Amino acid sequence: MDADDKIAVGLEGVYVAKSSICKVDGINGKLYYRGYAIEDIAKNSSFEEVCYLLLNGKLPKLAEFEEFKKALYAERDLPEEIVGIISELVGKASPMDILRTAFSALSGFDEKLNDNTEQANMEKSLKIISRISSISAAIGRLESKAQYVKPDKSLSHSQNFLYMLNGKKPEQEKADLLDLMMMLHAEHSSNASTFSTLVTGSTLADIYAAVTSGISTLKGPLHGGADEAALKMMDAIGSPENTERYIDEALAGKQRIMGFGHRVYKTYDPRAKIIRGHLIEIQEHADGKVKNLTGIALAAEKMMVEKLGETKGIWPNVDFFSGPIYAYLGVPGNLFTPLFAASRAPGWCAHMIEYWRNNKLFRPLEYYEGEIDKQYLSIDKR
Amino acid sequence: MDADDKIAVGLEGVYVAKSSICKVDGINGKLYYRGYAIEDIAKNSSFEEVCYLLLNGKLPKLAEFEEFKKALYAERDLPEEIVGIISELVGKASPMDILRTAFSALSGFDEKLNDNTEQANMEKSLKIISRISSISAAIGRLESKAQYVKPDKSLSHSQNFLYMLNGKKPEQEKADLLDLMMMLHAEHSSNASTFSTLVTGSTLADIYAAVTSGISTLKGPLHGGADEAALKMMDAIGSPENTERYIDEALAGKQRIMGFGHRVYKTYDPRAKIIRGHLIEIQEHADGKVKNLTGIALAAEKMMVEKLGETKGIWPNVDFFSGPIYAYLGVPGNLFTPLFAASRAPGWCAHMIEYWRNNKLFRPLEYYEGEIDKQYLSIDKR
Ligand SMILES: CC(C)(COP(=O)(O)OP(=O)(O)OC[C@H]1O[C@@H](n2cnc3c(N)ncnc32)[C@H](O)[C@@H]1OP(=O)(O)O)[C@@H](O)C(=O)NCCC(=O)NCCS
Ligand SMILES: CC(C)(COP(=O)(O)OP(=O)(O)OC[C@H]1O[C@@H](n2cnc3c(N)ncnc32)[C@H](O)[C@@H]1OP(=O)(O)O)[C@@H](O)C(=O)NCCC(=O)NCCS
Repeated sequence: MDADDKIAVGLEGVYVAKSSICKVDGINGKLYYRGYAIEDIAKNSSFEEVCYLLLNGKLPKLAEFEEFKKALYAERDLPEEIVGIISELVGKASPMDILRTAFSALSGFDEKLNDNTEQANMEKSLKIISRISSISAAIGRLESKAQYVKPDKSLSHSQNFLYMLNGKKPEQEKADLLDLMMMLHAEHSSNASTFSTLVTGSTLADIYAAVTSGISTLKGPLHGGADEAALKMMDAIGSPENTERYIDEALAGKQRIMGFGHRVYKTYDPRAKIIRGHLIEIQEHADGKVKNLTGIALAAEKMMVEKLGETKGIWPNVDFFSGPIYAYLGVPGNLFTPLFAASRAPGWCAHMIEYWRNNKLFRPLEYYEGEIDKQYLSIDKR
Repeated sequence: MDADDKIAVGLEGVYVAKSSICKVDGINGKLYYRGYAIEDIAKNSSFEEVCYLLLNGKLPKLAEFEEFKKALYAERDLPEEIVGIISELVGKASPMDILRTAFSALSGFDEKLNDNTEQANMEKSLKIISRISSISAAIGRLESKAQYVKPDKSLSHSQNFLYMLNGKKPEQEKADLLDLMMMLHAEHSSNASTFSTLVTGSTLADIYAAVTSGISTLKGPLHGGADEAALKMMDAIGSPENTERYIDEALAGKQRIMGFGHRVYKTYDPRAKIIRGHLIEIQEHADGKVKNLTGIALAAEKMMVEKLGETKGIWPNVDFFSGPIYAYLGVPGNLFTPLFAASRAPGWCAHMIEYWRNNKLFRPLEYYEGEIDKQYLSIDKR
């Protein structure tokens, strides 16, 4: 066996844990959260309920849900030091880097930080989910040179995000669409960011340390950063008529088209399908920039599916259609990945809590291909 | 095959990449950096030279080394915003959490952040190595309620750390001992923090994002946090005579003794052996707290080696003897892990740069053991 056969490149096909949180069926294009099909979730549920479901393993009864939402909403306020850090960094660092930094600082404001019981980690998870969202919205708000808006505990999770971002209560239709997007991004088994969360937590570092790794990892354009990258491409394409030529040239130049392809899905990502349906609705009544973006997105998708879908197994993923939807919601491009982080937080926390029940340090090997026993020569003899 | 057989628990024995940076020979208790035995490094080299070696794959010639040190030392200054973040968090968050936060914020102060060429990543690595050390020292300084001390570019790396920590130039013997400790901690193949660095960077997130994951991961007591945890145990033991009873009780209660055991070494960690030699020297001339700690450490080591060494393959690791050495150097316990991070930074950067030459997204699988196709019932029907 030569070295290459020994290496689990990218850990493709390697199982790292048992889990009962999420099933991604990449062959049939199906996705389940705790056994519920994503289409049912999308139609019937809410981000808050998805958080409950992912963390607790079951859908809540009415009283449980009321209590859960109250607890979640109660954690929205940001310590003033955190708002201070955001203000200090806006304009200097990217929104995703500011989120990582401000989130990292949050650990200092959780009195249960070092309590490692599952109960305490559940409570910390609520704080984390609530506050990542507040931080992301606050970053968008301060980026636009407006004043920080305090959260409003009477609003739903998605309403509050848009309220903190824009300073006014959103139309219900838009809050509902954001709610849907957050549900679709909430969880996706052992993707790179969730996996890095587990690697960090496997050392018994606390849940804030673990989620900080998740945020760090989400940034990359091969992962969460693909949504912003896809929007940039649409901006570069400029108008629907240019789409074909642009993509042909990109593919000829061996460029990756962001928002397409997936390690596990070898067919149409079911989340992308759901979002596509909404995009078509938006296209009908949108105008200006959003209409244009929608046109580009749908043209690019059609083309890519024809060229690379069946033949190469490269299909649209959840990040491709996000851009036009978020643009419609008034979320700026550089806030897409922070918003993705806010949406993925319940997935990160649920996985961490599950992994700790049976913790084992992640410590793989590298295949060493260098020399050994080299002679150390003093600097004048080199 | 049942589910358990499918899972690579903790990725034990799994090769995740080829590498020519470091060989850990866990059977024979040997360690090589770029082919040079750790004993030779410890005797002849310096932390600065080890950084050069890890990053460039070879030992520097005189002119190369002078240029490298100059560039490294030139990056020591911390932006005032970073000192501001540290000041804001001292007393609220732990030093390791402050390091993670302040380091994360640094990305906003590197104009090459988004330049992904290897050359730029080499330059960023120097900034990172230099500044993690400044941040760690500054945290220790501000924790002791003293004023921030600006770095001094005329000092060596270890001298400058102690200078920024204590506000006065250290005795040469102490700077040399710190230099040795930093060399011994600089690199250790695909340990958990280095691995998490790679997972993050494999999404093509930038090197600051990747190293932020490394820092997050180092915190855990099963990894870098073991050094502080070992010191806490020595403090709890109180004096050498109590060691035997304390450890017997701990083992009887199935507690882990921090600073012992290793995924790869099934024999004495060669780094621990080197440090032990220095500890014995210190014991001879130390007094007070340091003498006491040294006595406890050596007694505990003797006992553990007898009880668990040959029989269970649980031997002292690099983190066990660090406590008494750092105490001798005047480094407080809660700064051990930040200092470890400052020492490991070259390892993280070298691995990241190497991995990017042949990048592949880390995206493993989980073995799903939950239900599917559950029926979604509306909340009043549950
Ligand atoms: C997500 C992704 C990293 C998964 O890929 P992977 O399992 O690691 O496989 P690879 O990146 O090695 O790609 C396999 C092949 O498909 C091609 N490919 C993958 N995604 C592609 C894309 N979006 N556009 C064009 N070609 C693509 C690769 O170039 C490679 O071709 P080759 O074998 O001829 O070199 C990859 O599809 C990608 O980079 N997509 C774009 C980023 C993105 O949208 N990420 C969000 C995922 S939710
Ligand atoms: C480093 C470490 C996580 C590696 O261990 P691993 O390969 O994941 O193996 P496990 O943790 O599953 O341990 C295997 C067995 O050895 C025992 N063991 C391991 N380290 C031990 C220690 N320090 N003290 C007592 N028992 C220990 C475990 O309890 C387990 O026993 P069991 O099989 O009877 O349950 C582990 O040795 C440890 O926790 N050490 C203490 C922390 C430390 O010093 N870390 C720094 C490493 S540089």
